[in-house]
Order: sequence, then structure tokens, then C-alpha cells
Amino acid sequence: MRATVWHGPEDVRFEEVPDPVLIAPSDALVRVVVACVCGSDLWRYRATTPPPSGPTRIGHEFVGVVEEVGSAVGSIKPGQLVIAPFVWSDGSCDFCAAGLQTSCRHGGGWGAQGDGGLVDGGQGEYVRVPQADGTLVAAPVEEHSELLPALLTLSDVMGTGHHAVVKAGVGAGSTVAVIGDGAVGLSAVLAAKRLGAERIVLFGRHEDRIAVARTFGVTDVIRERGDAATEQAAELTGGNGFASVAECVGEQAAWRTAMDIVRPGGTIGYVGVPTGVTEGLPVRPLFNKNVTVAGGIAPVRAYLPDLLAETLDGSLDPSPVFDLELPLAQVADGYSAMHERRSIKALLRA
Amino acid sequence: MRATVWHGPEDVRFEEVPDPVLIAPSDALVRVVVACVCGSDLWRYRATTPPPSGPTRIGHEFVGVVEEVGSAVGSIKPGQLVIAPFVWSDGSCDFCAAGLQTSCRHGGGWGAQGDGGLVDGGQGEYVRVPQADGTLVAAPVEEHSELLPALLTLSDVMGTGHHAVVKAGVGAGSTVAVIGDGAVGLSAVLAAKRLGAERIVLFGRHEDRIAVARTFGVTDVIRERGDAATEQAAELTGGNGFASVAECVGEQAAWRTAMDIVRPGGTIGYVGVPTGVTEGLPVRPLFNKNVTVAGGIAPVRAYLPDLLAETLDGSLDPSPVFDLELPLAQVADGYSAMHERRSIKALLRA
Repeated sequence: MRATVWHGPEDVRFEEVPDPVLIAPSDALVRVVVACVCGSDLWRYRATTPPPSGPTRIGHEFVGVVEEVGSAVGSIKPGQLVIAPFVWSDGSCDFCAAGLQTSCRHGGGWGAQGDGGLVDGGQGEYVRVPQADGTLVAAPVEEHSELLPALLTLSDVMGTGHHAVVKAGVGAGSTVAVIGDGAVGLSAVLAAKRLGAERIVLFGRHEDRIAVARTFGVTDVIRERGDAATEQAAELTGGNGFASVAECVGEQAAWRTAMDIVRPGGTIGYVGVPTGVTEGLPVRPLFNKNVTVAGGIAPVRAYLPDLLAETLDGSLDPSPVFDLELPLAQVADGYSAMHERRSIKALLRA
Repeated sequence: MRATVWHGPEDVRFEEVPDPVLIAPSDALVRVVVACVCGSDLWRYRATTPPPSGPTRIGHEFVGVVEEVGSAVGSIKPGQLVIAPFVWSDGSCDFCAAGLQTSCRHGGGWGAQGDGGLVDGGQGEYVRVPQADGTLVAAPVEEHSELLPALLTLSDVMGTGHHAVVKAGVGAGSTVAVIGDGAVGLSAVLAAKRLGAERIVLFGRHEDRIAVARTFGVTDVIRERGDAATEQAAELTGGNGFASVAECVGEQAAWRTAMDIVRPGGTIGYVGVPTGVTEGLPVRPLFNKNVTVAGGIAPVRAYLPDLLAETLDGSLDPSPVFDLELPLAQVADGYSAMHERRSIKALLRA
């Protein structure tokens, strides 16, 4: 089959790799229908984080059709359309039971070793899915359904944005600041609206993304950065700052803004993969203001059933985060478009 | 009158100062009956934190009798025995209404300027108390009551320990790690027991303090530090770490331990004044484990009514945190005893 392989900075290739086969009895083999590029994939694309020493598979968001299952797989069946969360998990350990599948005792990531062999990356034609019963969520739709882009967001960005605002304590009537206008920030806006937030303030500066945010329910936009952004935030909140802040970037400047704009007793919910956050969080200002910091790598598997139900009935549609669609074979163009900010998020169709 | 004045490193003196008088109509004048030395006072005593440029008043925990009140004071009356929380607050602003009196819009600290003049420190014979209605809590006991030491803990350490475990999410059946065997750590143990914790693991190494902790409900003690402490914590928790950690020290090593022993999805509740926490909190491990960090300067005023009721009916007795009693005039001996760890906490009787 063909799959995406990272070879070096700004060098991803769609190339021939070994066909995956079932290895563990809990495996499923999934034919990918749609996949996408994640903002966090760009860290490796740019080699911002220490890159791997050699070529590696990449991609962790996909929707596909089950081709084959191992003998221990019970709930997932061949022919089903399934959504894969961005980590795989057994669904049965204590962490999974607690809704923290990202800390599953027998789970792992895509494009790495696990459960007896290579677990394929999501940006390929086929994927061996370990712990299929725990990992995959079946959706009763056809593979040519118009819902596929929306369903694909549930594998990561929509659940991740949701985690940010849940952890930030957003509820009915809330005011929330969302830092970052990437696909996760936009999803956080939509999630906040869904949870009943009345005022949703987006910190972002890209007009195309702000336009999407408007359709998702943003009420205010702060286009400045740094001190100017903090000043605007103070103006907007009568000098008080925000009780809820959703940090959806993961860079140092975004964290500084989050710390500056949170009000005493408030909460920073964060989901931005902390890349380039070279300073630790200073304890003293958190202490003085009694600020709570909550969040982390989002257990999207825990949120998937609820979000799926609403996506299926049409009440939730995060699909506008995709503004580019390409054949999977042109995955490299998807990366470069996102790298150059010509695209918010690229959908890849197999 | 005489009051405690900090003059320099390891130099506090009980000396003649101007008698306080009512300045603002919301003031009360309180004659101190009992006061005490706080672990956080030792930071200034040792000049660990950048010290003031000249002599300053000190002390922020006291119980006394109201001598006189300003014309705007309504609920507090002369003759009442009152407990002063470690910050003063108006009791009426939005932060006070939200139970965050430490962020009061018209509040401040003891031994500093506020509301029209000097606000006396708590380790003196008299104190001008600003915002008396919001700040003080009256207790229906005589000034020679045996309850005074217990009531005095409600001005800081008991409420602070309580804040740590509340923020750490402790409830019925919880397992909690309490880092630090100072008066706040011991109070956190007692607070955890009060909230129904079943397993309370104290990280401490002073046998006199551990003995108090035993009477407060500790079930396990880890006497090691650093990696050895983390290993013992892993053993005690089946390798999982603690869902709730109460950080009651505020030093770098304690924070490192807190980060190491918290389990995925767990919460660090912290109240240790962050002195010498030179490193910020590293975001990546928090992110990977979905750890929540919550806490800060404790709004003990918010907790006072409930804790007071239980102290009055005898169901709560934090007084064993005091293991030394001195006349107020010998305050310097109280400091040196705590500085040299000959005493957990020194009570000063006027």
C-alpha cells in the first residue's frame, strides 16, 4: 500500500510501504476513507521538535471502513465505517474507565510500534488498528456520506477543542477567551457555543479563520498579540480578565497571554501541544490569583459518543475547519498549504 | 503600644510603636489576645525573599477583643472576641461574594499601608482592622477560653490546609498525598480527614510533627525525599501515583515531588507560598498526564464560618499544631524556635 512517510524537514512523501496485516487478535484492519493533517503534525514537518532519526510514518486522524478483524474483536465488525481517535486505547483499563483513554495502560500512538508490530500512521491507505474494540467508534453512515468531514473532526480537533473548554469550566452563560484560531481553537469556539457560553472571545488574526469562528459563535475578536492583546482583554472584561481561558496553541506567547488575561479564581483549560514552551509556568502569579490550570492531551475517545450523536443528527457541524480537500496521494501539498498558512486544515480523501 | 517589628535577617523586636486609632469609618480597633508566627513569616525573618528596605511590622494571624469600631461598622461590636483572617477584605465586592476574599477589591495585608494609614501587624498589642465587617469573624467565647489556640488556627493554617485539600479534590473515600509536615501540612491532614479521606499519606521527616499528624488521621508516612520518596509513593499506590496531592511547602523540591507522584488525570492542590520556586512548572508533563494544578493563597475567610462552627462544638481541633506558647513580648524566641525547627508553630499570648 501507500502511506505518508516523514523523511525530514518539510519532506513528507506518499510512498510504497508494506501492507499491514492483523497481528494481535484485538487488531482490526481499516481501509482509510478520509484522513487529515494536524497542526501538531507541522511540528514534526518543520522539525521544531527534535525530529526522529530516520523516516517515520505520520498521521493520527482518520475515518475508514473495517476490512478485517482479529479473533478477539467483538464490537467492531467488517464493513463498518469507523472513526479513529488520535490515540488507540483498550477501553477497559481503569484510566479508560475514568475517561482518560490518553493514559490507557495498553494504548499508544499511530505511526509507532505497538501491540506486536508497527501501528500504521493515519495518512495511509490502510491502518492496522490495535485494541479495535476500545479504540474505534462505529458510525452508521456510508463511506460517501457528506458527513465524513464532520466525523473526521471527531478524531481530534473537535474533541480537543471541547476538552479545552470543558477543562476551562465553560457552561451555560459563560464568558470564555479562546486563544488561537487554528482548527483546535475554532473547535473550542464551537464547543463553547454548544455548552451554552454567551460570550466567546477569540484571540486570532487570520481573517479566513475568524470568518469560520463567526459561524461557530464567536462574539468578539482580539487581533492583537502580547501586551496589546492583554489591554484589549482588560477593556472587554471591565479590567477583570476572564474566568475561563482556553489555550489552544501551545506556544510560549499564547501561555503568557493566558496567564495575563485570566481573572483571579479563574481557570486556564489548555490543549495546545506544548511545543516551544521553554519557560515553565510561573507559580507566583498563579498562586496570587488562585488560578487553576487544567487540561492536557485530550481524551477525545471519551467525548466521541456524545459528539458523534450530535454530528449524526446535524446539530453539530465542525466540518468548516477544513478549507482544503486533496487526494491522499497529494498529502505533501496539504502539509505545505498548512505550513504556509494557506489552509486552516487539509482533508485528504483516499 | 508594643508590637513586633522586623529589622533585618533574624532580627525581630517587640518594641514601642504608635498606638493605633480608628482612621476609616469601617475600621475596628482590636486588642490582641493571642497571635502566632507563620511559616511564611520565616521567609522574611531569614530574608529568603527580597527583604523590605527598612523596619516593618509583621504578623498576620491573631484573635482579639474588639475595643472600638468606626461609624460604618455594623456587624462587629465592641467586646466581641474576633478572629482575623490573614488578609483583610470588604466582604461585599464580587470577589468576596465568590469566596475569593484574597482578591478583594478593597482588601490588603497586615503590617502594610491600607485604608488611610498603617494597618498594624498581627503580632502586636493592638491592631487597626480595616473593613471590620468584612474581615472579622466573631466567636461567642470568652478571652480566656481554652478554645483560643484552636480558633487562632482558623486565621490561617487550618483554612490554608483545608484549601489545599479542597483544591486537590479530596472527598469521601479519597486517597491524598500531603507534602510537608509544617503546620499547614498538618492542617491539610486534619482537613482531609474531616472531608472523609480514607488514606492520607504524609511526606515529612520530623518525628514530632509526624506524631501530631497521627492524631490528625495520617495513615502512611513517607520520610524520604526526592527520587526515593517518589519510589515509595509508587509502591504505596501500585505504581499509579496519587489522584490528589496537597503541596503545602512552596519550595522547588516539594513541587518536583508533587509533579512526580500525581497520577494521570490527578490534581495538585497547592498552598505553599512559592518561595524559592525558581523553576516554572513544566507544561509537558502536566500535558501528558492531564494533571490539574489548583490552589493558591487561601481565602480562609470563606472557610471560617464552617470551620468555626465545628471548632466551637468540639468536633474540630487543630490546636495541636502549636507546640510552644510564649508571652507576646518574647516573640523573638518564637521566631528562633521555629527557625531552628525546635517548634512547629509558636503561639504568642498577649
